[in-house]
Amino acid sequence: MNVIYGINPVAEALKGSAEGVERVVVSSQRRDKVAEGLVREAEKRGVPVERASPREIERLSGTDRHQGVAAVLRGEFSYSDLDGLISAWKRSIEPAFFLVLDSIQDPQNLGALVRSASAAGVHGIIVPKDRACMVTPAVVKASAGATAHMAIARETNLVRAIATLKEAGVWTVAVEADCPENIYGVDLKTDIAIVIGSEGKGIRRLVRSECDLCARIPMTGKLNSLNAAQAGTIAIFEVRRQRLGGTFL
Amino acid sequence: MNVIYGINPVAEALKGSAEGVERVVVSSQRRDKVAEGLVREAEKRGVPVERASPREIERLSGTDRHQGVAAVLRGEFSYSDLDGLISAWKRSIEPAFFLVLDSIQDPQNLGALVRSASAAGVHGIIVPKDRACMVTPAVVKASAGATAHMAIARETNLVRAIATLKEAGVWTVAVEADCPENIYGVDLKTDIAIVIGSEGKGIRRLVRSECDLCARIPMTGKLNSLNAAQAGTIAIFEVRRQRLGGTFL
Repeated sequence: MNVIYGINPVAEALKGSAEGVERVVVSSQRRDKVAEGLVREAEKRGVPVERASPREIERLSGTDRHQGVAAVLRGEFSYSDLDGLISAWKRSIEPAFFLVLDSIQDPQNLGALVRSASAAGVHGIIVPKDRACMVTPAVVKASAGATAHMAIARETNLVRAIATLKEAGVWTVAVEADCPENIYGVDLKTDIAIVIGSEGKGIRRLVRSECDLCARIPMTGKLNSLNAAQAGTIAIFEVRRQRLGGTFL
Repeated sequence: MNVIYGINPVAEALKGSAEGVERVVVSSQRRDKVAEGLVREAEKRGVPVERASPREIERLSGTDRHQGVAAVLRGEFSYSDLDGLISAWKRSIEPAFFLVLDSIQDPQNLGALVRSASAAGVHGIIVPKDRACMVTPAVVKASAGATAHMAIARETNLVRAIATLKEAGVWTVAVEADCPENIYGVDLKTDIAIVIGSEGKGIRRLVRSECDLCARIPMTGKLNSLNAAQAGTIAIFEVRRQRLGGTFL
């Protein structure tokens, strides 16, 4: 059973595709405006609403961080595929903007990256099938529901996926702390994919060597590191900044 | 007892001020290179090392996310005060770079912000005394140990703290989603403090109205929001970008 929880994730799931929501479960102890708004939203879209005790919602969601709200979805998270991502971009009039996540393990980080990507206008995210965090309920929660609006493709072979992007004319930029090139000096207004590595290990060697360019976020201070979610967020908003034409400062 | 846990936080605490570390506790099941490196580091600095079972470390740290390593610190986290932050800046030759966090509640977000601030070269962070997350062991862990190198001042009255910063010649910029001004159009190379609000509520009205300017991070997409850690990270790295003279793109 695919259960999501928390006010924002459930609200976004209803907005994203209400037909994918089997039922919404709300704590019998929540009669406040926010919860009632969610109930009305569900009812408006024809989604059944159940009342349950906080303990029942805890059992259903597998966590006590459910904020008194959960939703049972039909089926698992629906992944896209790379070809789908590429053709959606080709139909659009915008320069490509993809995000490749090489083996992010932590649901908090994956969720934060999906949320940032959604806010920055990323067209799609590519993740590996193995040894990486999938789109679990904890990821949906950490993304504040942004997973409902983001195309995510799971690829068996990330090296081949990058090769496919390159064949389609997309320029791939690996972001790593040890790259000589400064990301603020790289033109990101063209068709690009930003590649971010995992928390502990960075981008795998073969994946990195397939990329067109390697760029770093220039850091200072005694602790020369950022976590994957922060580094990825900075990189994709630098893309956004450049495309907005923020050239004046 | 002030206990921190996790490989990075303990390593950074030893580097930051070994005299503040009473003892290091390492799992008897960890005999790998990383753990042994930490043991050597502690011994080199004269800090006693104990071996314990994973369960004992769990009891000590209050979490199962300790990675087999914990450290007992002498006393609580040592906060700075605002005057100290301001005089440290005045002694330096750099333009001021402060971060004001208005009531961040989530330890993950506070830790991520301290880590980003450290990597971006922020001189000091100002947080309110009440209704905000303190520097707990979970914050130290989420910061990957960056708390050991960051001056953090706790102020009773954040409005007055901002007024004090302004009197000292610091320009205060509130970052909120609904501001008309685009942050990429604001000159951040002068003496500034970036003000970030809490996850749910943003910056409090009185705090915001005390700020010199309000600026937004321009977003797109269906979900027009970022969490506090991501928004803060983007804003402080925009300061860093401008100060590096990244004016060419």
